[in-house]
Amino acid sequence: MHTKKLERQPVILVTNDDGVSAKGLQCLIEMVKPFGKVIAVAPKEGHSGMSHAITIKHPLRIRKHEQDDGVELYSVNGTPVDCVKLAMSQVLKSPPDLIVSGINHGSNSSVSIFYSGTMAAVIEGCLYGIPSIGFSLLDYMPDADFTAVVEHGKPIVEAVLARGLSKGTCLNVNFPAIPSAQIKGIKVVRQNMGTWREEFEKRTDPRGYDYFWLTGYYHNEEPNATDTDEYALNSGFISVVPISIDLTNYKEMDALENELSKKQTVRNEEKIR
Amino acid sequence: MHTKKLERQPVILVTNDDGVSAKGLQCLIEMVKPFGKVIAVAPKEGHSGMSHAITIKHPLRIRKHEQDDGVELYSVNGTPVDCVKLAMSQVLKSPPDLIVSGINHGSNSSVSIFYSGTMAAVIEGCLYGIPSIGFSLLDYMPDADFTAVVEHGKPIVEAVLARGLSKGTCLNVNFPAIPSAQIKGIKVVRQNMGTWREEFEKRTDPRGYDYFWLTGYYHNEEPNATDTDEYALNSGFISVVPISIDLTNYKEMDALENELSKKQTVRNEEKIR
Repeated sequence: MHTKKLERQPVILVTNDDGVSAKGLQCLIEMVKPFGKVIAVAPKEGHSGMSHAITIKHPLRIRKHEQDDGVELYSVNGTPVDCVKLAMSQVLKSPPDLIVSGINHGSNSSVSIFYSGTMAAVIEGCLYGIPSIGFSLLDYMPDADFTAVVEHGKPIVEAVLARGLSKGTCLNVNFPAIPSAQIKGIKVVRQNMGTWREEFEKRTDPRGYDYFWLTGYYHNEEPNATDTDEYALNSGFISVVPISIDLTNYKEMDALENELSKKQTVRNEEKIR
Repeated sequence: MHTKKLERQPVILVTNDDGVSAKGLQCLIEMVKPFGKVIAVAPKEGHSGMSHAITIKHPLRIRKHEQDDGVELYSVNGTPVDCVKLAMSQVLKSPPDLIVSGINHGSNSSVSIFYSGTMAAVIEGCLYGIPSIGFSLLDYMPDADFTAVVEHGKPIVEAVLARGLSKGTCLNVNFPAIPSAQIKGIKVVRQNMGTWREEFEKRTDPRGYDYFWLTGYYHNEEPNATDTDEYALNSGFISVVPISIDLTNYKEMDALENELSKKQTVRNEEKIR
């Protein structure tokens, strides 16, 4: 982390994927408000499962909402990533000091990060070079109790505002759905490996045609690992996973190069690696 | 890579994000047909920019298309990731030996992987533990010439079918838009770092309200790097980036743990890492 001193009040951009009306968004605003000027730009409607989608087939509109606590609140008829892009380009006068996304109603631990609109907004912030954090609570109910997230999330926000994050790294923070007093602490852990196993529910419409509803359950492929987000959460800890936006698997490069070089159909005229 | 011997004909699942009617899909089918039984499940319509989105708000339908060359072709009213999930759950009798996605009309190199439906399908395949490859051509035109991709992609498919890919690793393969004879070879390279810089086009509707169209251009943050996909492509090579589905930035874990442990608001009752 790099020490960073600000002469002015920090500007914090808030977004989410459950939409502008979600309780989690207001709780996240409450969490970060003590630390600076808050500008929130969130999807008009919920966008769970939208991942890093961007809107290119229809135009986007921004609507300013009334909010009486000094917070600027806007909604966009697009995805969480659209919200970050529009905020950076059209709403903010200069890049924010921090982007926070959430508080998601439901887990974004393990491989759920790939489907998550909350974490896509965080990755988008990181692509812009802004320190970015995603907060999720393992309770998908609309009236979930975010008290513990607001309380224990503050020191994480404070640390990242004070020290920044390394280039190309953002944070995936998940909270167990337990009362604040039962939380055992914060753990920096790795992404657990697992899969969502699909169990499509097959139905037949009145005209006799089949259709399918996506359902499924999470299968933990590392049930015995003790250094992962899944384990930390199951043990009553807040999980913090540092996420890299460089997806290259460097360890596989040499083996792959050896394998593919045997298969070259053309002569290499120069060696670039 | 792990050696793998098959007693039976390999089964190859083909998908894409430009939709079932895209020329790139038929060219990809042509590329992999010599290597096994081909089953293609593709979105009914184009889904560029949909990333890893899944469809949870409306039901999915599968339609079987007529194809006279022994290939089974289906379309789904969903995203590329929906196609992989439905294929795995409803179309295929057992997991395929290989998943290929594309050929995308346009680049998926560098950070474009985050927005790419083509690569989302590949990552989804990798989450299922299936060797998976995404192919893209740096030409977004509907009638792009995929001759070079079909020719030079075959040895890559052959190598992966013969040896598999390491657990948690899939391939992002991009082709420069140049004639086959001018391609200099295949390079295993890392993901270039860059950003899409947005330039929203602001318009005003007949009622006087503003709306925005997403546009933008790619800004290369590593113009002098010679070991990246961007450099390989600009130099006339096919770029192959091994992609990891473990996004943890392990190098940042200790620094982050030190930083956050100073900020703990609760006592840790046990040490899990």
